[in-house]
Amino acid sequence: MDWLFDDIMPPDENFRQKALQKQAQLTKPAGSLGMLEMLAVRLAAMQRNNRPEIERVWVSVFAGDHGIAAENVSAFPQAVSVEMGKNFATGGAAVNVLSRHVKADFEVVDTGLLQTPESSGVVVDKSAQGTANFLHEAAMDRMQLNHALDAGKNAVNRAMAKKAQLFIGGEMGIANTTSATAMACALLKQKPCILTGAGTGLDNDGISRKATIIEQALDRHHNDLRQPLDILQRLGGFEIAALAGAYIAAAQQGLAVLVDGFIATVAALLAITINPPLQAWLIFAHQSEEKGHQAVLQALDARPLLNLSMRLGEASGAVVAVPLLQMACKLHNEMATFEQAQITTE
Amino acid sequence: MDWLFDDIMPPDENFRQKALQKQAQLTKPAGSLGMLEMLAVRLAAMQRNNRPEIERVWVSVFAGDHGIAAENVSAFPQAVSVEMGKNFATGGAAVNVLSRHVKADFEVVDTGLLQTPESSGVVVDKSAQGTANFLHEAAMDRMQLNHALDAGKNAVNRAMAKKAQLFIGGEMGIANTTSATAMACALLKQKPCILTGAGTGLDNDGISRKATIIEQALDRHHNDLRQPLDILQRLGGFEIAALAGAYIAAAQQGLAVLVDGFIATVAALLAITINPPLQAWLIFAHQSEEKGHQAVLQALDARPLLNLSMRLGEASGAVVAVPLLQMACKLHNEMATFEQAQITTE
Repeated sequence: MDWLFDDIMPPDENFRQKALQKQAQLTKPAGSLGMLEMLAVRLAAMQRNNRPEIERVWVSVFAGDHGIAAENVSAFPQAVSVEMGKNFATGGAAVNVLSRHVKADFEVVDTGLLQTPESSGVVVDKSAQGTANFLHEAAMDRMQLNHALDAGKNAVNRAMAKKAQLFIGGEMGIANTTSATAMACALLKQKPCILTGAGTGLDNDGISRKATIIEQALDRHHNDLRQPLDILQRLGGFEIAALAGAYIAAAQQGLAVLVDGFIATVAALLAITINPPLQAWLIFAHQSEEKGHQAVLQALDARPLLNLSMRLGEASGAVVAVPLLQMACKLHNEMATFEQAQITTE
Repeated sequence: MDWLFDDIMPPDENFRQKALQKQAQLTKPAGSLGMLEMLAVRLAAMQRNNRPEIERVWVSVFAGDHGIAAENVSAFPQAVSVEMGKNFATGGAAVNVLSRHVKADFEVVDTGLLQTPESSGVVVDKSAQGTANFLHEAAMDRMQLNHALDAGKNAVNRAMAKKAQLFIGGEMGIANTTSATAMACALLKQKPCILTGAGTGLDNDGISRKATIIEQALDRHHNDLRQPLDILQRLGGFEIAALAGAYIAAAQQGLAVLVDGFIATVAALLAITINPPLQAWLIFAHQSEEKGHQAVLQALDARPLLNLSMRLGEASGAVVAVPLLQMACKLHNEMATFEQAQITTE
């Protein structure tokens, strides 16, 4: 896992400055395109390109099963993980529809489902069938953690081979908000009753029960949650580890990342804790309805692009934000300058 | 102007119910696509279509000059209205870039510029060259008001001839936030110091001066602001009247409307005051940075789709939101159902 700590270079300051100058010349009041201006400037600096573009988008959805599902913490039965894995592979899920709309390359990666879905088109990159139940033991061993982090890096390598200009990671796995919430509590030193939400649709009693399970698990692992990789190993999931690995690998290779909702943001927080310069490569797509998301975004001082009350995961919120990045780039590249349009600025 | 009061039928309740049932069958936790679900359901009801779509988008930007510009209420000189009109006609403005991205039909309509820009491709539909200075007299006479309202209806007729599935209206005209703010104050019975904002970029002193001008104008017209059409005639602009007329005409013809920022929302509020069933046909695209926008949206109980700190006008915020509508429709139409995907719902 030594590669996780390898250098991440910052986006290019020279290109950032040139992009800021360009924005000031475009035919609009200064600042009037709001966050779209900031997006274009950041992407110019990340891509080292005076004409940034988001034409080739890569979406990897990492899927994994969770031992903690045995504690009845989800509104859906565990079998749904494999069934949804197949739905991704056959193109019927929300993220498939959205990926087609933005013409993204899409893949689903089995990072640790109980069974690999019977469908071609699933990338299999796993070391186990589901994590252990972290109420009683570590979710995974060190070798499994290593494999899942590498699975993320492998996905980025496939994206780079296709010359992707944006990496989006998604996750799916029944009970994985329980895992992500436990990780967020450990990283932010926050109580489960504050961060635990409904996931796929628990009622209030279900949320209370879920928070209690998380509290018991945090007590159980209490002495082993000092380092981020320990938190990931003890409380995490294979798909969450893959996201963290993918984010770091993308930044190390100079590839911009668009972060999805709650679980993806927890993976991002963990990855930033491991390798802080990562943060400059992350764009936060949306504010999820899942309860813990706001606290994690605040800890990162992140203002997401969208707030559409989505709470689906599977990269869906990130893909919905892709057109904003595309339009930000096109505005930057195609608008007339005051000089070209002969507009009085006085 | 009698046509303004002609019936507006509500969107189809039967199609709305069928769309709600369809949403409940798609492979996602109920409600997890947030506002995208509501959008698809509303569009199905407006289009009377089980497979709603937003493929043909129409954008009309109405441009007009304002006599109130003489009071030094804008950060830009009045000449910019005509110059920007030409920029729209030659494709260099933000809204042009955005319209190309979403493949919208785009037109700029001179509803009352001081001069028609020297450029082909400007639709001319005007009765005057600029409004009068409403600090001293009514912005327009009754015949001019009538013409500008009709100009909006004419734009909708052009959109309908192209079988548009969505109408977007934009506005441009130096000093038009002053006009819109005065109208908002009259409609909401609110003080100018509460609603007056920076427009294209006034500093705090400029905003104070602008609020004082608006206050004086409201005093001047005080006895003649009881009816919405009087407010429009006394304080409005030709492009704002065109927007109001367009919104009503679109709803009368069953065409969904996507409303832009502050000025467009003031036009919508005025139009709803004239013909209240209009509201069911309006989708609010974004929360603008312009100070008065939030109060106007609240008065309409509207939750806009985006909040990107934009404040450009010219329909730009609305066109940025078009992909959200398109994706909402595609999700509705293309996602697998639980039954198709054989997913356990228990």
